[in-house]
Parts: sequence; structure tokens; C-alpha cells
Amino acid sequence: MRHLMSPLDFTVEEIDKLLDLAGDIEAHPDKYAHACEGKKLATLFYEPSTRTRLSHEAAMLNLGGSVLGFSSAASSSATKGETVADTIRMISCFADICAMRHPKEGAALVASEYSSIPVINAGDGGHQHPTQTLTDLMTIRSLKGRLNHMKIGLCGDLKFGRTVHSLIHALVRYPGIEFVLISPEELRLPSYMRQDVLDKNNIPYEEVVRMEDALPELDLLYMTRVQKERFFNEEDYVRMKDFYILDAQKMELAKSDMLVLHPLPRVNEIAVEVDKDPRAAYFKQVQYGVYARMALILTLLNIEV
Amino acid sequence: MRHLMSPLDFTVEEIDKLLDLAGDIEAHPDKYAHACEGKKLATLFYEPSTRTRLSHEAAMLNLGGSVLGFSSAASSSATKGETVADTIRMISCFADICAMRHPKEGAALVASEYSSIPVINAGDGGHQHPTQTLTDLMTIRSLKGRLNHMKIGLCGDLKFGRTVHSLIHALVRYPGIEFVLISPEELRLPSYMRQDVLDKNNIPYEEVVRMEDALPELDLLYMTRVQKERFFNEEDYVRMKDFYILDAQKMELAKSDMLVLHPLPRVNEIAVEVDKDPRAAYFKQVQYGVYARMALILTLLNIEV
Amino acid sequence: MRHLMSPLDFTVEEIDKLLDLAGDIEAHPDKYAHACEGKKLATLFYEPSTRTRLSHEAAMLNLGGSVLGFSSAASSSATKGETVADTIRMISCFADICAMRHPKEGAALVASEYSSIPVINAGDGGHQHPTQTLTDLMTIRSLKGRLNHMKIGLCGDLKFGRTVHSLIHALVRYPGIEFVLISPEELRLPSYMRQDVLDKNNIPYEEVVRMEDALPELDLLYMTRVQKERFFNEEDYVRMKDFYILDAQKMELAKSDMLVLHPLPRVNEIAVEVDKDPRAAYFKQVQYGVYARMALILTLLNIEV
Repeated sequence: MRHLMSPLDFTVEEIDKLLDLAGDIEAHPDKYAHACEGKKLATLFYEPSTRTRLSHEAAMLNLGGSVLGFSSAASSSATKGETVADTIRMISCFADICAMRHPKEGAALVASEYSSIPVINAGDGGHQHPTQTLTDLMTIRSLKGRLNHMKIGLCGDLKFGRTVHSLIHALVRYPGIEFVLISPEELRLPSYMRQDVLDKNNIPYEEVVRMEDALPELDLLYMTRVQKERFFNEEDYVRMKDFYILDAQKMELAKSDMLVLHPLPRVNEIAVEVDKDPRAAYFKQVQYGVYARMALILTLLNIEV
Repeated sequence: MRHLMSPLDFTVEEIDKLLDLAGDIEAHPDKYAHACEGKKLATLFYEPSTRTRLSHEAAMLNLGGSVLGFSSAASSSATKGETVADTIRMISCFADICAMRHPKEGAALVASEYSSIPVINAGDGGHQHPTQTLTDLMTIRSLKGRLNHMKIGLCGDLKFGRTVHSLIHALVRYPGIEFVLISPEELRLPSYMRQDVLDKNNIPYEEVVRMEDALPELDLLYMTRVQKERFFNEEDYVRMKDFYILDAQKMELAKSDMLVLHPLPRVNEIAVEVDKDPRAAYFKQVQYGVYARMALILTLLNIEV
Repeated sequence: MRHLMSPLDFTVEEIDKLLDLAGDIEAHPDKYAHACEGKKLATLFYEPSTRTRLSHEAAMLNLGGSVLGFSSAASSSATKGETVADTIRMISCFADICAMRHPKEGAALVASEYSSIPVINAGDGGHQHPTQTLTDLMTIRSLKGRLNHMKIGLCGDLKFGRTVHSLIHALVRYPGIEFVLISPEELRLPSYMRQDVLDKNNIPYEEVVRMEDALPELDLLYMTRVQKERFFNEEDYVRMKDFYILDAQKMELAKSDMLVLHPLPRVNEIAVEVDKDPRAAYFKQVQYGVYARMALILTLLNIEV
């Protein structure tokens, strides 16, 4: 039995296979409409995340399966002092696969150790969010036709941004990848990411403070939200959140085929005027996320169609 | 693609067709049991409303479809600052149709402008609640055999009562409708409703303060709850809430075939002793609401059986 | 139409029949996979209880039915002042059967009086929790092969422990049952249980303060959580909660075939080292609970397969 804890749990070949499957699902959805009939997905969300939860639920429903679970810790037995280890053993009796979002790093890993069903880490604190990474890879490969030989801008909160870290981990395994890291000094990519991941893999990168300086040369711009909940005081948040706003004017600097991705929700870091730009891929990304998760569920349940 | 924002979105002919369909669903439920197989309804409830949410969910499940969503803003990404426009574009990737309840007037309308799936307005602040109106029309037509030539009493909170306003809008389009408006001075029907809707359509109406004065001549009595949350201070609420209580004694004044409707939940404005009266139609109304919503879902999804 | 309010609603013969059905479900799950197709379960949880709610939901989904409802009072119309009697009449229009958890004793009974669908009491305050009792009986019969002639230790909070009281009521109907009541003085089994249930049915029992004194002679040890919410002050809770902790060392005193049951969630009253002991049956109990509830749903809906 396999779980998905980190985007690196799958080899490059396995990722390829999974994305091929996701592509086939996109092309032939009817073929998969009953693939999970009689199967149940449990969504265990100890902190709310509408997008991630509903994406998993839509994926399972699209496969003909059903869903049960909880959407916040308040309605879970965590409030009665139950450990994650005990909860997952209970859930193993109720479902065939589960997706867990938890505020504590490592919670999903603990769950996977005690589970008798596959566990999908749907986000554990500031740590990992592997299904977002699969979504990002699916989007890039579908719209760019490849996952290699690209100059990728990562913009915004690179310090706390879990999705950015996961994406870097995943992309450094492909040839010809370069990064431009665009952030305020306070939110730079941590040194352990720069040294242990980028330098170690001989990945070229530069760090810039102004988005404009990077835009002309990028094949892809990955925007992130400056998440209020990652800051310790309101003042720092207010001062920094508007530094990195993408608008129509800045888009004029970019290549005609540069993709804009964003894990969403966006607050104001992408002006709504950009939505109509054909290079804006962040809403398509949501749709690709459903296909990627459908492929993931089939893969972890070992169901072939 | 069509949405349902206001009860007036459908013409009288379209309402007739929809209620015919609802009637056929009531008569032959099995015929429709698989009509929405593989379809998904998203319930987006930014404020809780068990009745309205579950009625939509029951409708979709009765049609063989499935359901996903959230039941309060706390478990939605609204708390992360996402706009309704962005949320609905996300939801469009997860579902085939959605029902939205939102505390702000116009929220559903904004959603419909950005949505790529049909949006049902399941209540936007004090503004519209069109599926309740469909429910009311279905109940009246089923139990009275007609929607025209009736004297209708509207009782309680006529100032803030969203369902009453919607019902008036819907009924003035039928011939021979008269209203008796029963309310305390403070909760009278607003002048824009009296002038722009009743007067403009030459609808006869009278305003009375005591329910007893109106009862003997009514074909239908539509009761409403005096909603605590519509008042600015507790004192006003306490003073007024018990003014308009329907009990067995008052029912003796009414015609033998006068229907009593209520959008529910009722608090104490209808004494429980009235529940056994065959003229009490408010629990049947809940059942008719499911049929009306089934017909609505089929209509908006363009599914013919 | 039947409801399940108390574990005594079924005769010993009916319990036998229900557990036979549950056993057949365990052996041949596929046979029952479509038994409730087109049927809907409403889960009405006025207080959160993940385990009980999800167990009912898993049961209904395993039978091919679907589920709707609410998981806490905050998202129900109870907050608008609706009575349980009115709510259940509404729910009767939305579902074919319902499971209700409510903080007030007798709430499910009131619901059953006004309902037109079968009501399962999924816990009403400190009063009854009959599906837990069915779960316990199913577990004992499956693993011991019988429900009679056993010496059963009941350990922990015997004063407030609803599941313990229900289990006693259910077991005194079988021949050869003896109890050992293991609790601190403050949490003794109430006198009305000792006199009106044990004494009246001539059930032999002893009361002990130390778990070690009872362990060697038991066929079954039923552990319970010392629930913080049952105490009036923090101090009493802290002083007492660790008195009755089962660990590997204590397990050495027990017979080689003594079963350990626990309604879960456990906090620290069973050390995790016991989990690996083959006599630990509390996680299997969760699985048996799903089979028991599947059998219950089929029985109350009068569905034969």
C-alpha cells in the first residue's frame, strides 16, 4: 500500500505515468465515471480548506465513488483528545482512501504509519502540499507540453510558501530548469532550500526584488499569496502584501507565451484585469487539479480502467 | 446557460411548465431517479440554512446526482479573503450546478456573472429567495388547483420578510389576485412594494392590524416568522413577536378550505395545536419544495427525461 | 414503522436476528452493496461526534444509499429557535431514515413521535446510545462466539458512562452474566442501576477499586474514558483520570483470551503498548460497528436482501 506524503514520493517516471493517466481522464472522462464505484474517500480536514477539500471530493465523485468526513477540527473528535493515530485507525474502517489536512507538520506521516488505507497528505502545516504540486505539474505539462527546459519565476512569499517549496523540489528533477526568485528581503527563499535543493542539484537561479526585472525572460510565473496567517504582526503584513502585484501593465513586459499560475485563493496579488489575458492559467489550474487527483486516487487504490 | 436569481427570471409560462414537471416528478419519482446520474450539485452556504441546503441536496440526490459544498462561511475560503467571483470560477471546475446562500444582497448575481455553471440563488441577504417562491407556488397550485383568483393574507413581518416580497412579485402576474396585508405598523410592507408592485399592477389590497379582521375572507394565509436577527434591539422584538400568533380559536374564523402556509422555521407564530388542522399546509410545503427544486435542477441543466 | 431509542427496543430474539444479519453482511458485503440504492440517511448531529456520525454514514454508503445532514448545531436551524418536533417533520421530507445525536435527554424520543421516517437515537445527552450497544454486542458475539456465561469487568467512569449503562441493560437479558464494577468511589455505578437493573435481574456483581484485583478472572474488560465534560471542576478530573490506566503490565494478569473493549475515543486510559496485544479488540469494534449499523438500517427500513 502506498501513501502520498511528499511530491518526491513518486519518481519522475511515476509522475509521468500519473500525468499521462490524468491526461487520459481529461480526454475520456466517461471511461472513468464508474472506476471507483463502491469506494469511499474520507476527507479529514483539521483546518478548513474549501478548494483542496472540494477538489478531492469532486475527483472521487467523478470516479463514481462517494465521500464522507469532516471540514474543520471543531466537528472532529480531536476536540476530545484523540490522537491522529487513533483517528486514522477508526477512519480505516469507514473509507477506502483518505485525504488529510492538518495544521501540524508531520501529522499525515503519523497517520500513514497507523493507517490500513492509503493516506493523501492534503497539507500539513507549512510543510508539504503534494497534491498542489501534482496540480501544478499537470498544468505546466498540459499547457507547455513539457516539464523541462524552462525559466520559472517564483513570486511573493517564498519563505513560508509551502506550495513553492514543494514545486521547487519537484522541478529540480527535470533537465534545463532555471529559477528566478522574486520576493522582498523578508520573505526570501530559506537558505536550506537554496543550498540543499538548488545548489546541490546545480540548478541556476537568481534572486530579484522587483517583478519587472524578471518578467521579460520568464517562461512561467508562479504567483503566491502573502498569507496573513503566516505573519506574527499585522503591520508587517500590511507593509509587504502589496509589493508584488501583477497587473496588465506588468504583463506587457512578459513573453507572449508566458504562463501565469497561482495556487489560489488570490487576494489582490493578481489584478482582476489579468484574468482575461490568455496567459492567465490559474483558473485552468483548478480544473487540472481535479484530473490530477482523479489519477492519484486511481493510482493509490491500484485501480486500472 | 440560465441561472435563477429572482422569481421573475421565469415567465408565467415557464413557471407553469416547471410546476407541471414538478407535478410529474411527484407522481412518478422513479422515472427521474437517474436523471442526474454523474452530475454534481455544489451547495455554497455562506450562512447556515439547514432547510434550504438540505432541500436542494435531497432534490439532487433524488435525481441520482451527488452533492459537495460547505454549510457555513467558517469552513469556506471566504475567510482567506477570496471574492465570490473567484470562488465561483473554482466551483465551476468541481460541480455542474450550484446553490448559493450569502448574507450580502447581490452576491448570487455576481457569482452568476463569472460562473460557467448554472447558479441558483438560495437567498441573498434580505433580498431574494426564489426557490422558496417556487415552493410556495407549487404548494398553492397543488393544493388549490390554481394560482389565480384568490384572496391571500400575508401576515407578520412584511417589512423585512424576503419570502413575502418574492411571493408578491410572483403572484401579481396572475389574474384575480387580492392581498390582505396583516402586520403591526412597524413592520408594514414597504412603500416601494405597495406603490411599484401592487399599485402599478392594479392589485387590490387592504392593510389590517388584527389577524381576526382578515381571516374570514381569506383563501390562503401566508404566515411569517418575526425574525429576531432583523431587529436592531431586543425590546422591539419581544414587544412585537407575539402580536400575530395563529391558534385553533382564530382558525375557527377561517373558511373551511383556507390554506395556511409558512416558509418555516416557525417559532411560536403558529400554535402547535394548528398542526393537526387539515388546512395547515406548512409541512406539506417542505415536501413540495423538494419537487420544485428537482424540477428546477432539471430545467437549468437542460435535462429532459 | 420502528425507531431505535434504547437498546431494549429489540427483544433478545430480535437482537440475535440483527446480529446474524450483520454477520452475513461481514461475510458477503457485495450482496448488500445496492440494498439501499435510492435511499437517503439524514445525520442530525446537534453536537459533534465524528465516530458515530461517520459510522452511520459509512454504513449507508456501503449499502449503496446516500447521506445528507449536519454535523453541529451551529449549522442547523436549531439556532433559529426551531423545535426538534418541527425539524424532524422537515427532515422526513428529505430522507428515508435518520440518525440523531442531541445534547438533551429524550430529544430523539420526541423526534420519533413526530417523524414519518425511522429515527435512530445516536446518543441523547447522558442517557442512551443504543447503536454503541449494538456495536458492543456484535463485537462480543463475533469474537467470543456467545453473549452469555461471561464475567465482565466494567472499568472507569461508571457513574456518567452512558455506554456502560446501556451495555448493562442489554447484557442482563442473557444467562450466566456476572459483572465486576471497577471505579473510584466518586464514579461508582449509580444505585438505580445496581438496584433496579442488577439486583432485580439477580445478576451477580462485585465492586472493586483497583483494576488489578479484577483482571485475573475476567472474560472481557470494557474500558471507558473519564470524560472531562462530565466533571464540574478541573481538579477532580485531573486527580481521577489516571487512576484506571490499562497497560502491558496489567495485561499480564489477565486471561489469554480476555477481550479488551472501549467505545473510543480513548485518551490515555489504555496505553498504546496494549494496541498490539491480540486481546485488544477496540479497533475491531469500530469495524463491527459499521456492520451492526448496516444491519440496523436494513432492519428499520424493512429491506430484505
